[in-house]
Amino acid sequence: MIPANLKNAFLQIVGSENYDDSTTGRLVYSYDATPQFQSMPDAVIAPRNKSEVVDIVKICNEYKIPIVPRGSGTNLCAGTCPTEGGIVLLFKHMNQILQVDEENLTVTVQPGVITLDMIQTVEAKGLFYPPDPSSMKISTIGGNINENSGGLRGLKYGVTRDYVIALEAVLPNGDIIRTGGKLAKDVAGYDLTRLLVGSEGTLGIITEATLKLIPMPETKKTILALYQDIEAAARSVSKIIANKIIPTTLEFLDQPTLQVVEDFAKIGLPTNVQAVLLIEQDGPEEVVDRDIKKIAEVCTNEKAISVQVAQSEEHAIALMTARRSALSALARLKPTTILEDATVPRSEIANMVNAINQIAEKYEVKICTFGHAGDGNLHPTCLTDSRNHDEIERVEKALEEIFQKAIELGGTITGEHGVGVMKAPYLEWKLGETGIAAMKAIKDSFDPNNIMNPGKVFAKDSKKRVVVAK
Amino acid sequence: MIPANLKNAFLQIVGSENYDDSTTGRLVYSYDATPQFQSMPDAVIAPRNKSEVVDIVKICNEYKIPIVPRGSGTNLCAGTCPTEGGIVLLFKHMNQILQVDEENLTVTVQPGVITLDMIQTVEAKGLFYPPDPSSMKISTIGGNINENSGGLRGLKYGVTRDYVIALEAVLPNGDIIRTGGKLAKDVAGYDLTRLLVGSEGTLGIITEATLKLIPMPETKKTILALYQDIEAAARSVSKIIANKIIPTTLEFLDQPTLQVVEDFAKIGLPTNVQAVLLIEQDGPEEVVDRDIKKIAEVCTNEKAISVQVAQSEEHAIALMTARRSALSALARLKPTTILEDATVPRSEIANMVNAINQIAEKYEVKICTFGHAGDGNLHPTCLTDSRNHDEIERVEKALEEIFQKAIELGGTITGEHGVGVMKAPYLEWKLGETGIAAMKAIKDSFDPNNIMNPGKVFAKDSKKRVVVAK
Repeated sequence: MIPANLKNAFLQIVGSENYDDSTTGRLVYSYDATPQFQSMPDAVIAPRNKSEVVDIVKICNEYKIPIVPRGSGTNLCAGTCPTEGGIVLLFKHMNQILQVDEENLTVTVQPGVITLDMIQTVEAKGLFYPPDPSSMKISTIGGNINENSGGLRGLKYGVTRDYVIALEAVLPNGDIIRTGGKLAKDVAGYDLTRLLVGSEGTLGIITEATLKLIPMPETKKTILALYQDIEAAARSVSKIIANKIIPTTLEFLDQPTLQVVEDFAKIGLPTNVQAVLLIEQDGPEEVVDRDIKKIAEVCTNEKAISVQVAQSEEHAIALMTARRSALSALARLKPTTILEDATVPRSEIANMVNAINQIAEKYEVKICTFGHAGDGNLHPTCLTDSRNHDEIERVEKALEEIFQKAIELGGTITGEHGVGVMKAPYLEWKLGETGIAAMKAIKDSFDPNNIMNPGKVFAKDSKKRVVVAK
Repeated sequence: MIPANLKNAFLQIVGSENYDDSTTGRLVYSYDATPQFQSMPDAVIAPRNKSEVVDIVKICNEYKIPIVPRGSGTNLCAGTCPTEGGIVLLFKHMNQILQVDEENLTVTVQPGVITLDMIQTVEAKGLFYPPDPSSMKISTIGGNINENSGGLRGLKYGVTRDYVIALEAVLPNGDIIRTGGKLAKDVAGYDLTRLLVGSEGTLGIITEATLKLIPMPETKKTILALYQDIEAAARSVSKIIANKIIPTTLEFLDQPTLQVVEDFAKIGLPTNVQAVLLIEQDGPEEVVDRDIKKIAEVCTNEKAISVQVAQSEEHAIALMTARRSALSALARLKPTTILEDATVPRSEIANMVNAINQIAEKYEVKICTFGHAGDGNLHPTCLTDSRNHDEIERVEKALEEIFQKAIELGGTITGEHGVGVMKAPYLEWKLGETGIAAMKAIKDSFDPNNIMNPGKVFAKDSKKRVVVAK
């Protein structure tokens, strides 16, 4: 609970309409999109500007009150669950698009801007912001930056990190720092911009960001390739890229996911095949035509049973929208949906998909797999029921073994969802003790009182790895 | 001087042939490509592998001996000048290309590999590593990573940072960390990879790196546009990009630079115009043709007095080689050449070039300007004589005013050369006290004994900014 004198101080800063410590208000922010994590904050505060953020941070730092910065809470790693209580910080007042600079190809925003609103604003000027997390309709840019969000277009265009070129942030000591600039090149000291991107709110609070834009691609086309053999689909992925074609998106859906997505979206997706690849290429028309032709050839040679180019923009949009709805569609089936994002080098996609299926069988759990095959970024999704303790235990063992397999194949425990609370116990598997120690040293140097999103990224205990019997 | 017992310990690690404390040996490594900085190291050591690096670092950390990791010493910020003595660490034995992975589009190298050797190796397989610092014929990848080197192709393709996806590094405490992987997406904890890139050897010693590659562009073309008006040239830069064309390179040379480059390269460059733009576009043939036509139109509309497409590959290469030789050509004219790299948002290029010329006039110094106009990354180059103390003083004041102007225009004190010793006193102008404090906190947390390249990035005293009279 926030002591009365501090509550008064907060009220002085933000006004009573922006401070909520009612049970209902706190309950709303006690969880995020991640299943199985819930914890009550002591208060929910919505600052109106950066100077209010500074004032709040200074009080929290002095009295060691945890701060959990939160956009729309769409993350899937319990990154904004207030596991140690304290304050949830909302950015609903700091949600302005400050400037679209058409000469320098940048957009400057406050953290509370909804990702899709920003994307539509720049697209209206013929400019393109590629990162497209599936939650972009409701996620905020601030959240995307804190989680270094990915998306479907990551293969060709990279992730949020690749587009953040300047930040303003309030550090745990109340200092405001400004990093980077509207600059294509800047090597003035350490890359604090990219250190903050993906730091999950554990190092500071982002109060403004400038993002790089690129010219809008002229056109795009979409292909749907159907397979009766998952390995053939995986091989197609490798072969397309080995043919020196980098598609915008190269998505994979397995049969169980397909079935569910079609039930949900009803756009005529085939449900009797083992896997589909949904491939989009964008760029100048001649290049798109050429690439799409070549991609179709590769898929056919790799034994796709059908290769179909979307005949209209509507059809292409319907296909992509269906893919984007995979999580929502899967979530309808069972009370609890656990979406993972183990990621491997793309050459290991077939091995990883096979391993996931074997692991699901071994633990008798239902796992549907879809994801960004071109990135090696898969989303094995467990459909379960958190009230069934026996099953949940098996689910956890299965996911653990999936992380272990990803690491064995040269991959990582999280490609785009972040560590948060959920994956913190596994982080050491990827980084080793020395890697964790180096990150912890940075955390301690920025935030000695551990007020910034405590309990995230760094686990109290790491899970021990056991070598999986082959 | 290294005490006898420690010298013995080093000899045990690397063998006598890899330890040099002779006066001649030390003299060779007492300076780098940066004029006016020289300081003797106590010894020069060439480890043969990472385990030798670890052993050396442990001794240095215990006895607080400075370590200066050095590739080919081509940096221009005195970044590898052993200003506080200690050990210069050479990577001549750690110079292998370990793997070109054509399926995952990566190359894995040791730090001592020469940049151009690596580029040629991957190009032979149809793959492309875009960062092309002008020193690439002799620079090493380790040096490029430590300095986050840029180059001519930065506008379209980004800089070294954008291609480093995994690192192995030895930290000051002797820990080995491995960051990243052959992964398009990885958000497992803080981005240590990009923190190390550009950290100028102040946080650790890179012992291995995996770099992202992209497919080789199919073709390229080059345009030379001549101007009698510098502002018209600068306007062309903005207009090309506002037309949604991002060329591979968009280089600017002013009249004095042109004159010198032509004297040196003798390829028929015009020397009677105020400025030229040298523009290259690469990609699929249809797109290159279309872009080049559009670029030529823009330049003509913006009052270029001549716009000429290179008629053969040889001519294009000759033009680009001439541009790359600008520093060498300028260096022949006067005993001392000081090359700067103040960088501004590209919309401010004309303002910056004008300011540089006014500043040169005010201080009666000779400044030639060339550089990556598309990036806003200019290289005002001062031709002077370090023995002329009066002139050097004026040169330093002029450069200081150039940095100040760059900051005023929303720019930075260094776009691609790094901070090193040379710009350390000015770093606070870009970052403010709070930014410096945040970086210093990271440095202290990694390297509490300050053994890693001490005296670089962080100055003992910051220069105070004075507002320039308009």
